[in-house]
Formats: sequence, C-alpha cells, structure tokens
Amino acid sequence: MSTLAIATAKEVFDLLRDDLSAIEREFSNDAVSSVAAITDISDYLREGGGKRIRPSLLLLSAKAQGYSGHGMIRLGSVVEMIHTATLVHDDIIDAADTRRGRPSANTTWGNAKCVLAGDWLYMQAFRVALDERNFKVLDLLIGLTQQMVEGELLQMEKLGHSIIEEEYNDLIYRKTACLFEVSMRLGSELAGATEEVEEQMGEYGHSLGMAFQIVDDVLDLTATEEVLGKPVASDLREGKATLAVIHSLENGTDADRKAIEMVLTDQNFSRVTHAEIVSILTRNGSVDHAMGVAMRYAETARGALSVLPESEFKRALLWVPDFVLAREK
Amino acid sequence: MSTLAIATAKEVFDLLRDDLSAIEREFSNDAVSSVAAITDISDYLREGGGKRIRPSLLLLSAKAQGYSGHGMIRLGSVVEMIHTATLVHDDIIDAADTRRGRPSANTTWGNAKCVLAGDWLYMQAFRVALDERNFKVLDLLIGLTQQMVEGELLQMEKLGHSIIEEEYNDLIYRKTACLFEVSMRLGSELAGATEEVEEQMGEYGHSLGMAFQIVDDVLDLTATEEVLGKPVASDLREGKATLAVIHSLENGTDADRKAIEMVLTDQNFSRVTHAEIVSILTRNGSVDHAMGVAMRYAETARGALSVLPESEFKRALLWVPDFVLAREK
Repeated sequence: MSTLAIATAKEVFDLLRDDLSAIEREFSNDAVSSVAAITDISDYLREGGGKRIRPSLLLLSAKAQGYSGHGMIRLGSVVEMIHTATLVHDDIIDAADTRRGRPSANTTWGNAKCVLAGDWLYMQAFRVALDERNFKVLDLLIGLTQQMVEGELLQMEKLGHSIIEEEYNDLIYRKTACLFEVSMRLGSELAGATEEVEEQMGEYGHSLGMAFQIVDDVLDLTATEEVLGKPVASDLREGKATLAVIHSLENGTDADRKAIEMVLTDQNFSRVTHAEIVSILTRNGSVDHAMGVAMRYAETARGALSVLPESEFKRALLWVPDFVLAREK
Repeated sequence: MSTLAIATAKEVFDLLRDDLSAIEREFSNDAVSSVAAITDISDYLREGGGKRIRPSLLLLSAKAQGYSGHGMIRLGSVVEMIHTATLVHDDIIDAADTRRGRPSANTTWGNAKCVLAGDWLYMQAFRVALDERNFKVLDLLIGLTQQMVEGELLQMEKLGHSIIEEEYNDLIYRKTACLFEVSMRLGSELAGATEEVEEQMGEYGHSLGMAFQIVDDVLDLTATEEVLGKPVASDLREGKATLAVIHSLENGTDADRKAIEMVLTDQNFSRVTHAEIVSILTRNGSVDHAMGVAMRYAETARGALSVLPESEFKRALLWVPDFVLAREK
C-alpha cells in the first residue's frame, strides 16, 4: 500500500480480500442446520449478496488496532448473520416482494418458515459469538438486537404520519447506525482497546451509520428506479418520512406540508406525483439540507479516528465516509 | 413439611410460593421495554398465566441441590420468557385464534408486531441470563432455543403426513422435553453440581417432559372440549399425528390406517368422525400404549433422582411425574 490516502473501493477491498473470503466461508459453515429449510433460506440470503459493510468495518477496526486473530472472522460472520436475520423478519413485516432485486425469502418459503429461519439465525449468531467466551461481546450484540427490534416496532407505529427530526434520528440509529457502531466496538473489544478508544470507534461507527442511512434515504427520493433496483420513493410509498421530507414539512409552505402529508397517508402518488414531491424538496433546499447533515456526520466519523495510530487500515477508515457520501446506490 | 412423600399440588406450591412470586415480579420487571407495544404484548402473555412448570422445575432442581441465591429467580424468569417467546411465534405460524382460552396475541396486535415482540422476548431472556456471567448457562439456553425453533420447522414439514414413533419422539423432545431438561440443568449449574449429577437432572427433565407431552397429546384426543378449553383433537385438525395415533397407524387394520390418513390429509372430521377415530384407537389399545410409554418415562425420571440427597424438594420432584400422569387437562 502507498502511504498516501486510499482512493478507491478496490484498494480497500484488496486490503480485506482474504479476510472477507474467510468470513464468507465462516458464514457459509455457521449457517448450516440439520433442518434443510433453515440451511436453504440462509444460503439463499447469503448468496443474495449485500455489500458486507458491517464485517468490513469490524475487520478494519480490529486490524487498525493491531488485532489479527480468528475472532474477527467469527464476529464478522456474526454481524452479517444478525443483519441477515433482521432482513428476513423485516421482509415479513413489510410484506416485501423483493430484496436486493430477487424475490424476498418470504415469497418463496412463506412467512411461517421465515419467522423461524430468522429466529434461528439470531440464535446461531449468538451461539457463534459465545465461542469467543467474552461477556462484553455478548452484551454488545444482545443490546444491539433489542435496539434494532424496538426500532422496527417504533417505525411501524409511525408509518403514514409525519415525524420530527429527533424521531427520524432515533429510527435510523436503530435501523443502521447501531449495528455499524457495534461492529466497530467489537473490533476494539477483540483488540483489547481502552474504554476511551472503544468509545471513539463507537462514535465513528455511529456517525458513519447515520451518514450512510441519510444518503440511502436521499437516494430513495432522487435516484432512478434503474439505479435503485426498486421503485423510486419506496419510503414515501410505505408512509415513511425521511430527513429531506421532514425538512420540507418543517420549512415548506402550508401547501407543501399538505402535499407531503397526502402522500404519507395515501402511501402512493395518486393525488400528488413523485415529480411534485421532488420539486417541493428542491425548492426548499431539503435534499441539500439532508446531504449537509450527512456530511457533518461523515466529518465527525473521521474526527473520531484521531485516537488510532497511522496504518493502511486507518487510512481505509478515513476514506469510507467519502465513499458513503459519494455513492449513487 | 412432613417427612412423608408429598401428596398434593398445594404442598409443592406452598414449598415454592415465595420464589414463584419473586419470579413473577422478576418477569414483570424484565419484560418492560421503552416501546409500549412490546410491554403490552408481554404483559398480556404473562397475565394469561400458564402453569409455570418450567420455573418450578428450575427452583426444585436448584433447591434440591442446596442452592438459594437470586440466580434461580432470574433464570426462572428467563425460562418462562423463552417459553412465552416460542408461544408468540408459534401462534403466528399456526395462525392460532386462541391461546389459553383468550384471543392469541397475533389476533390482537397483528403478526408483524408479534414477530418483533417474540424476537424481543428471546433477546431479553438472553440479556437477563447474561447477568449471571456464566457461559455454560448461555450455552444451554441458546442451544435450547435452536432445538425448539428447528423442531417447529420439522413439525411444519410433517403436517398432514403420517410419521413414525422416532420422528414423534424427536418432535416432542424439541417442543417440550428440551426446555424441561434445560430448566433442570440450570438448577444444577447454579448449584455448582458435578457433571454426573447435572446429567441425571437433565435425564429427569427430559423424561418428565416426554411424559408430559405424551399425556398432553392423549388428552387432546380423549378429553372434552370443556376440559381442554379448545376443540377436541386439535392435533389431528392441524394434521399432526401423535403417539396413540401413530400406534394405530402401525398396528391397526388397513381400514384404520386409511381412516386416520384421511383425517390427517383433510385436517378435519368431514369424512371420518372424531368418534370413529377414538373407537379405532380404543380397539387397538393405542391410548393405553401411549399412557404406558408415558408411565415408563415417569419411572425413568424418578430413577434419575437417586443422586440427590433427601429433602422436601427431592420429595416434590419425586411427586411431579405422578401429577403429570394423573392430570386431566
């Protein structure tokens, strides 16, 4: 690696290639049950891909703190299993038809089997984590899954309603930032970091996760169906107000507010078109506002890394927030 | 307590009264979430009652081995929370309308919230168990929940089909005996028992659980709707062959087999009546066979207690198998 800043996703991927392959093998071995349906469902989900951001963060955190043992492979698989378990149950809850451009597991295997497969994946994640024989690791993981499950319930209760920015922040923390934070903290835990360093790693994961989800929510409003691999403005169609929308609710005209609330209530664009919503958001500078908030989170994330010694892994972590801000899907 | 054998449920209840009350309080405190829906659902389920057999076994096991700390209250709440979580998810899977004579949680709150509430209860059970700071306790609990979840999936795959006794044994082990076994083992774990004693306590719980479920399944076939609080032969209506039915499948005439398979396929009594099934089972001595198997399990359970020193708790444990065999609902 050069001593210059890392500039491409490929450089980061090269840095983690072997460990990410090891995590894929670990996940593939971990998620085998004596009950065929469970193995089938988890294979299907694992093969569906995903960006493996959470295990990558865990690896970078552990390695930037000097750790190189098998624990990071094991816990890398664990955070991806937990992420997968939440997706299975979320798809049931949202009655989703597709996930990552393929039929969602519940459309293929039915809700009942997917409830149980999700349960099993949670348990298996804890079982594998238990092999670390580290109570703090278990505290982090179990606290995390409860936050996520509670977040999903809070989200359900808010569907179709306008919410304030504070509620939005809590929802995306639970949905995304919490697992990013725990992935970073687990790296510290493995490396035997001080409480102070672990706090900073947690801060990095938290801020990065907030930035990631805000950008995700902006793209849902502004990108094309082709790029997203799903209908545009899916959040609004599900009755979810995200940051840019909340900004226009709070800063737009009465007519703007009425138009947005109509879409949230209808959960479709029959009375107000998608183009009208985009025009409202643009006129109020709401997309720029959301991207500005994401940028500030990205800056906070980078700042938290000052406790780390220089290394190619630290440089990769410094690069990730830019990647998150610049991504187009 | 007298030094004679314990003779009534009231005597056992008196022995455990204070600790069971403490477990109720612990459960009630443990199952409080910052998300109202979770607390509501878990309160509803907790107040629905149930016999608290699993915490009672855990208490008797711990106390018969000389333990008297708070761990038995905490883990008593944990096993009841796990039991409750499985009931919530099972009701979704079975699309059940009622549970313990009241509307099931899913009919009141909907499947989506109940998936999440069940998830949360599992996590909370692990979180509370984690406070014991005992890896073996966590190994037992997580292994257990996986067995139960896998069992529910295996059961789904067998609905509507005739099964053999070996498959039935595996299903009821996972459904019931496994948690009875773990409750007894947790008592040993708390008391710091030797491996040998823990094995015997596990054997007791396992055998008692098998007897309990066999009797439960017999009562489903032979008791009245009034006593059961649900329609008679619910298992057959769900396409489940239980021990007495399997005995008639294997030992009855071709006509018997055909009649039973018709009910399993139809999942109702439109072509073959419930009375006809009962008459087939009676003619083949199938109910007696099932009760005989349950009695042998009860005997094995009692035998496993020989490793325990004499105490009123041991006497209570000796009494439980008879109670299980004699119960009418």
